[in-house]
Amino acid sequence: MIQTMESLRTAVSGLGPRTLAVAAAQDKEVLLAVDGARVRGLATAILVGDEPQIRQIAQENNISLDAHQIVHEPDKIQACRTAVNLVRTGKADVVMKGIVDTSLILKAVLDKEIGLRDSPVLSHVAVFQANGFDRLLYVTDAAMNIAPDVNAKKEILRNAVKVAHALGNPNPIAVCLCAVEKINPKMQATLDAAALVEANQSGEITGCRVLGPLALDNAISPEAAKHKGITDPLAGLGDILLVPAIETGNVLYKSLVYMAGAQNAGVIVGAKAPVVLTSRADSDEAKLNSIALALMIASGTSNK
Amino acid sequence: MIQTMESLRTAVSGLGPRTLAVAAAQDKEVLLAVDGARVRGLATAILVGDEPQIRQIAQENNISLDAHQIVHEPDKIQACRTAVNLVRTGKADVVMKGIVDTSLILKAVLDKEIGLRDSPVLSHVAVFQANGFDRLLYVTDAAMNIAPDVNAKKEILRNAVKVAHALGNPNPIAVCLCAVEKINPKMQATLDAAALVEANQSGEITGCRVLGPLALDNAISPEAAKHKGITDPLAGLGDILLVPAIETGNVLYKSLVYMAGAQNAGVIVGAKAPVVLTSRADSDEAKLNSIALALMIASGTSNK
Repeated sequence: MIQTMESLRTAVSGLGPRTLAVAAAQDKEVLLAVDGARVRGLATAILVGDEPQIRQIAQENNISLDAHQIVHEPDKIQACRTAVNLVRTGKADVVMKGIVDTSLILKAVLDKEIGLRDSPVLSHVAVFQANGFDRLLYVTDAAMNIAPDVNAKKEILRNAVKVAHALGNPNPIAVCLCAVEKINPKMQATLDAAALVEANQSGEITGCRVLGPLALDNAISPEAAKHKGITDPLAGLGDILLVPAIETGNVLYKSLVYMAGAQNAGVIVGAKAPVVLTSRADSDEAKLNSIALALMIASGTSNK
Repeated sequence: MIQTMESLRTAVSGLGPRTLAVAAAQDKEVLLAVDGARVRGLATAILVGDEPQIRQIAQENNISLDAHQIVHEPDKIQACRTAVNLVRTGKADVVMKGIVDTSLILKAVLDKEIGLRDSPVLSHVAVFQANGFDRLLYVTDAAMNIAPDVNAKKEILRNAVKVAHALGNPNPIAVCLCAVEKINPKMQATLDAAALVEANQSGEITGCRVLGPLALDNAISPEAAKHKGITDPLAGLGDILLVPAIETGNVLYKSLVYMAGAQNAGVIVGAKAPVVLTSRADSDEAKLNSIALALMIASGTSNK
């Protein structure tokens, strides 16, 4: 089981040659991230975008393009479609967003003809290596689904379970995070948690153990759970943290990175191949981690 | 301006004799917290509750009751009413919850005849001293208001501003936390944030500067805000973090305590005097901090 970002990157560099399909690659930050991935032995890239701009940016920043291919496509919508198609046809392993709106990438991913549709819901999974934890934590969905209903949450959970499986965790403990431990009809998150636990027990959601409602302390700290009198032996051992809405996930994400000093990675899953959306706010390490995460997931998917 | 928990406790111990009115004090954890407050010179207590039980628990745990008064009242509802009345009549400074449901304490606090009604909304304010921050952070509402509408948020914000004022921060920066920085009609939190900023600019909410919508990174990290291209010079300097709903606040609270190692305090405000609700999950330090916080607020209120 992969339990650190370092072992994730090591595992990916051992997978053999991997290829990123970068949509609209004419961006310094993106080219630096791709260069980092090459240097670390994670992957090379097919850079889809405005070739003269790509070459100029690379030259200005001393970025070698020798290991990569370039496909000249100045139109951003077309660049997204081309990058997605490269993955669909097996020429690349994952799609990576360049300097283009996320909505355009996702539109291409969801395109019925050339796209990569798979699960009914695309969702974001953030993975954290936090201080004091001997395992990775998977937070979903902190970035994409705003206020998912219980059916969307089932898909979000399934998507996250696949990510944990791809990282070698065969039966992750998924906690439906709430503000309390008791079902309260005034708190929809607690009702959804109960429904998700039931869906797990009935076999509708498989490959994981679902707990909830639990507050964060009792999701990640066995001591806190014991102190609170929670008898479930899995309480405090959460791997996947399913948040009720985007604000909760986003605050947890940012708090882990900016206040708890956690290392992070993020990816969009639910399509036949993952999509890497590094942002300018990500550290260089986080960008590499996200690329590695996506490649690992793609590897796991293709092995099935 | 008080910027650490230690300076908060020092300030309170310099206020002169203070008194806690403890409702249903027959509880080991509560008596230990009260004893800690006495030892640190924060306050003594009027212990309202079952006197034989209080004395037995104290004896079994070597807790001296010499500095405190005891008011025998075995009935929990009456104990709450008595404790609230002690504050209303100036015999105690703050109400502290003993072994009684929070709802019973709050019912007594809100009682039209003997209570302490003041603001239209009672709310919880959690105060954090987090690593790497030169100031205290005020998170509200992580524990009481489930999904406040914009009008309730105005009151919650006003309540928190009073807490910051009581701790010597004359013009706190209050950030309406969201998942994004742009107003998005699909995200109610962003609409509420815009309305709260406007209420601040129009003079409806005073004594603070309100910013938002901002995600947590841009609320508390000037570097993140700069990197994101946010031009407001106050971005990243947030003191008060107003969360959109209880789950977001609760996750932030727990993440700060259990993952970022922050020191914390918490209090219910909005009544004429604050209410201390320490929980078993609180560390001994957190309980003392909460008592100190409540006493400081009570002092600030009484000075006005």
